[in-house]
Amino acid sequence: MTYQAPVDDILAALKAAGAFDPVIMDGLDEDTVRAILEEAGKFASEVLDPLNRIGDKTGSRLDNGAVATPPGWKEAYSRFAEAGWTALPCPAEDGGQGLPSSVAMAVGEIWNAANLAFGVCPLLTNGAIDALHIGGSEELKARYLPRMISGEWTGTMNLTEPQAGSDLNALTTRAVPEGDGTYRIIGTKIYISYGEHDLTDNIIHLVLARLPDAPPGTRGISLFLVPKFLDGDDGALGPRNDVVCAGIEHKLGIIASPTCVMKFGEEGGATGYLVGKENHGLAVMFVMMNAARLAVGVQGVAVAERATQRAIRYAGERRQGRAPGDRDMVPIIRHPDVRRMLLTMRALTVAARGVCLATAVATDLSHKASDPQTRARAADRVALLTPVAKAFATDAAVEVASLGIQVHGGMGYIEETGAAQHLRDARILPIYEGTNGIQAIDLVTRKLSLAGGVAMKSYIADLAGTLSALHEAQHTGLEFGLEQMARALEAFGSATTWIGRKSDADGDIVLAGATPYLQLFGLVAAGDALARAALNAGNDPAPLTLLRFFAENRSVAALGLAASVMAGHASVLSADLGAGT
Amino acid sequence: MTYQAPVDDILAALKAAGAFDPVIMDGLDEDTVRAILEEAGKFASEVLDPLNRIGDKTGSRLDNGAVATPPGWKEAYSRFAEAGWTALPCPAEDGGQGLPSSVAMAVGEIWNAANLAFGVCPLLTNGAIDALHIGGSEELKARYLPRMISGEWTGTMNLTEPQAGSDLNALTTRAVPEGDGTYRIIGTKIYISYGEHDLTDNIIHLVLARLPDAPPGTRGISLFLVPKFLDGDDGALGPRNDVVCAGIEHKLGIIASPTCVMKFGEEGGATGYLVGKENHGLAVMFVMMNAARLAVGVQGVAVAERATQRAIRYAGERRQGRAPGDRDMVPIIRHPDVRRMLLTMRALTVAARGVCLATAVATDLSHKASDPQTRARAADRVALLTPVAKAFATDAAVEVASLGIQVHGGMGYIEETGAAQHLRDARILPIYEGTNGIQAIDLVTRKLSLAGGVAMKSYIADLAGTLSALHEAQHTGLEFGLEQMARALEAFGSATTWIGRKSDADGDIVLAGATPYLQLFGLVAAGDALARAALNAGNDPAPLTLLRFFAENRSVAALGLAASVMAGHASVLSADLGAGT
Repeated sequence: MTYQAPVDDILAALKAAGAFDPVIMDGLDEDTVRAILEEAGKFASEVLDPLNRIGDKTGSRLDNGAVATPPGWKEAYSRFAEAGWTALPCPAEDGGQGLPSSVAMAVGEIWNAANLAFGVCPLLTNGAIDALHIGGSEELKARYLPRMISGEWTGTMNLTEPQAGSDLNALTTRAVPEGDGTYRIIGTKIYISYGEHDLTDNIIHLVLARLPDAPPGTRGISLFLVPKFLDGDDGALGPRNDVVCAGIEHKLGIIASPTCVMKFGEEGGATGYLVGKENHGLAVMFVMMNAARLAVGVQGVAVAERATQRAIRYAGERRQGRAPGDRDMVPIIRHPDVRRMLLTMRALTVAARGVCLATAVATDLSHKASDPQTRARAADRVALLTPVAKAFATDAAVEVASLGIQVHGGMGYIEETGAAQHLRDARILPIYEGTNGIQAIDLVTRKLSLAGGVAMKSYIADLAGTLSALHEAQHTGLEFGLEQMARALEAFGSATTWIGRKSDADGDIVLAGATPYLQLFGLVAAGDALARAALNAGNDPAPLTLLRFFAENRSVAALGLAASVMAGHASVLSADLGAGT
Repeated sequence: MTYQAPVDDILAALKAAGAFDPVIMDGLDEDTVRAILEEAGKFASEVLDPLNRIGDKTGSRLDNGAVATPPGWKEAYSRFAEAGWTALPCPAEDGGQGLPSSVAMAVGEIWNAANLAFGVCPLLTNGAIDALHIGGSEELKARYLPRMISGEWTGTMNLTEPQAGSDLNALTTRAVPEGDGTYRIIGTKIYISYGEHDLTDNIIHLVLARLPDAPPGTRGISLFLVPKFLDGDDGALGPRNDVVCAGIEHKLGIIASPTCVMKFGEEGGATGYLVGKENHGLAVMFVMMNAARLAVGVQGVAVAERATQRAIRYAGERRQGRAPGDRDMVPIIRHPDVRRMLLTMRALTVAARGVCLATAVATDLSHKASDPQTRARAADRVALLTPVAKAFATDAAVEVASLGIQVHGGMGYIEETGAAQHLRDARILPIYEGTNGIQAIDLVTRKLSLAGGVAMKSYIADLAGTLSALHEAQHTGLEFGLEQMARALEAFGSATTWIGRKSDADGDIVLAGATPYLQLFGLVAAGDALARAALNAGNDPAPLTLLRFFAENRSVAALGLAASVMAGHASVLSADLGAGT
């Protein structure tokens, strides 16, 4: 089936998240945003969607250091760049179109829904552009940003090493100053998405490495720009740099996205340029990682949307079984149990979109609000919600994609149907850009105490405000659901207070409950997003039905999660698991 | 890594489930059962496990109607049959070894853990043997059973047709009486596991079809035996029957197991022999399907066990991050969040094994108990627990396999690691032999009212009995968990009563909550299995820790599920899903 960008749904979500604040939109009106989404939807349906299946079947292939993307991908990428889509989210002062983050994220959903493996490439290039924008010298920016923004060149992020996955302390890639302002980079990086490919002539690698005299741990990490081809005269490509793709991984999903092993300095050292200050690379990388984390959350929304569209379409066509009083077989969408699966899929998708866009709106405010206090508060909100948006949306993507298979029955297990690919693709999302376990740890150890806990207090106050507004709206039929949401918020408050009271000595106790706490946070944030959508829906009854479904069938899990956070740790910490524990 | 059959765990589970009742074991002592499990474990590790990866990579291939299994499979199957493993679960009066169902299921776990795609073949052959045993004439049994039991020939189950997946009403395969006691079978069947292969010389298909004058619907379905090769003289293979494999599916997982499209009667009609009475085929098929459903639950246990072993091994070896006070990186098994994932995996695996073996023990009692009332009650218990065991264990398999990927981080997404295959393999289990949605519908529409509701009452009384025993045992630290289990049982009772009070006119309301009810049932059944294991554990503290973990972190979900059952249906039934609703 062909992917249809859900333009109305996305617009409604942008509105409910508060994106149409004049400070954010800065003159962009709803019609313009709609036109952008519709154009993106058209490009996605006509160009990217048809390459999704062949990408999955063929994959990218490595031959003698060169990576060939699947048939049709190079041309699609050229059209993508020519149409200006690469420039869309980029800073206006660097030559980008400077669209708000919320609109850029909304458009990002569309690329990734049509073709997740394709979407990885602009996602990471944007991360590299952000890092250069923040940390690069004017000279470096002038040299590289225009061609990255135009899409002529792509960018990569090189963090992971074989012995250092989630733990950047263990990083060993070396950077040796040459005395002329450049550095020789030597080391091996793994899991580098689009580290090598044939979509563009040049690839700009951003690489974390250590200087010879760097302090140990993460305080001794610097960031370098390492182009595949060095500069030649007059903007032409110069000599090949000392960086090669030594292998690509055979993965469960996003098979067309080449996941590369990159070797820097096999011939003595790759030429690199410092980005930001020496030993302060991680600060720049974190800015870019946070944006990337939210973008991965949006990838989750994308896969979930795509899987939901496919399942609803199938369930409306496939006839099986009879309803009472019917002589003929009915479309399975009429069976209550199938409806439950489809509603679960839709509710999780819409909720995940709402949570991600709320985070994107906070990002916009953190950049654009006029007074510094508002900007600072918005920045704290972004920091607080980013792990939640990333984890909730990516966990939702896996659940939704798995339900999508189930709706198809036996057909779902056959690859040609397309439903199985969504699960395979989605399964990377809870892992990359920081596993969801790491998001949970980030949340409980760093984010809850932001601004002395005020960031969290103000968020809980906002959640309570939404519930008050729902109470006032007095929607018939929502009484039980609203009661469940109120209980969920109370449980969330209790769990938050409980964590806040734990001392450093109780670190492991808190960490043992980090994941259920993150899930609880996601549950109330999702309920809030659906509630805002319902409050904002005017005469459309659908968002209210979705909210009711979620409140009655998902928010009800909150008390159990809170119990797990506060009382479930003893066995976690004491169990003998038999392998080196 | 090599699979290690968890012989001690399986023995403990058999004991906790009550399998060592003299009526069931009939002279088999614990040492003998241990020896059988150890032998099976040895065969699984040495012969089946090494073929798992090549099976996944190569798959079975169709060429001109012939299916070639992966390299090494034919020899492994021969050794499997020669060692007598095919005969193990078969009725002694037909020449099998007549082991209790509980022991046979325990051994089945071992085959499927080592190689799920291989395990599908004996699983279905057993189903066909059961059907023949129950419904076949003496002559038919004498002709086919010995060679199926010895493993010389395999069997298949042919139910599904393109237009009739879950709905056998729509079945159209025809059977025309020839007047000589045989029938001509004409029609197409899909999703036929091992419908064609090169492991054996002959394949015995059991096929559902309609006679010309059959009543419509499921009351007009008959069962036929259709051999690939007809009988020749003196037991030699005779002429090829009119049945061919027209295609094999390209699947997400269990790739080595050939899933065939079978065409019967392309040349005028395949010769078939009636099994059971005309128009009464479904009764025979249901007996075999129920056994197969429990066996699929056991496949779930198997994948979960394998994924858990792999994840614990990896987590004990992979070093990443530091614990407070440590200078060096520690194995990730020391991180609380990783421990939570591993404990979830282990608890679900052990609980699923317990629920499946409790069902198998009831099966044994239903056959072997001396008084008819005990047999009847046990048969009702089997009927009640089969959908729960199938659904709980297969949902657990998917969750555990997915967590297994997560524990591996980025490595989990790389196919060579092996963790991803478990998720791909596991994902068929909630679908085949009746989707878990169909199990839920079967449970709420047919099983709760068995024996006028007495079957369910007696089960709840047993659950309450386990809780009383736990109370009496006064395990330190279990207080909170026990309270949660008591609340879960109460919620389960309420939801059960609520369903019981609904009239036929409320059918859709009940159906809308069927899946959360099944999940709630699974939750209390799983808690009960872990509780029995803990009560039975003597001085071993591990089962108690696992119970505590489950009670504090999973049983706490019961109230939410009960709310969903009783109050979550309005939106399910009323939502506009936009595609023919």
